[in-house]
Amino acid sequence: MAEIDHQQCHRINQILARVGDKWSVLVIMELEHGPRRFNELKRAIGGISQRMLTLTLRGLERDGLVKRTIFPTIPPRVDYELTKLGRSLREPVVALGTWAQTHLDEIDAARADFDRREEEA
Amino acid sequence: MAEIDHQQCHRINQILARVGDKWSVLVIMELEHGPRRFNELKRAIGGISQRMLTLTLRGLERDGLVKRTIFPTIPPRVDYELTKLGRSLREPVVALGTWAQTHLDEIDAARADFDRREEEA
Repeated sequence: MAEIDHQQCHRINQILARVGDKWSVLVIMELEHGPRRFNELKRAIGGISQRMLTLTLRGLERDGLVKRTIFPTIPPRVDYELTKLGRSLREPVVALGTWAQTHLDEIDAARADFDRREEEA
Repeated sequence: MAEIDHQQCHRINQILARVGDKWSVLVIMELEHGPRRFNELKRAIGGISQRMLTLTLRGLERDGLVKRTIFPTIPPRVDYELTKLGRSLREPVVALGTWAQTHLDEIDAARADFDRREEEA
């Protein structure tokens, strides 16, 4: 990544920001199991508001990571699923998630240590 | 990552948020080349304010990813460097950066397509 220019760097960071977004990660993780309707996603992802889920899905759809399909039933049914691009994101996201999971205690300990030193200073 | 509970998930997401943070990524990328002083970092990372660099470095230090060393010279010299933990983050961050770099055009095209469709709707 060292050789990329600042323009590219900015665009990559936009994407990293999406991947680092809590709700986007949870939506991608849930959609790994298959297509889901809006309310199924809302139920599966505890604590997300209707508005935040709408915004998150729109962001993922805009980036081409999620596809929205409307079935002309009564009432209309709307499914969300990962695109090929969205599925390709799985591996690096899981690698990062695994890193985070592996080093969770280490990071928590570092934080507690930092906060203790701040209080003493 | 599917088997982790919500408590763990929240902590992991905090870490993903850090990794998805534009400035944190740029600082980690710059410190890969070796220890740097505050002003060296500020120069290397175009467009970052003094305050934002201070906040970013404190966040990375708190998480145990960056170590700050003060040398008792006159004036005092302060060096920032990656810890062992910080260096271990390199691989997953680069994997994600490589994914982003590989799919940049695809994502840009998806965005343009999405925005065009929104305008037409």
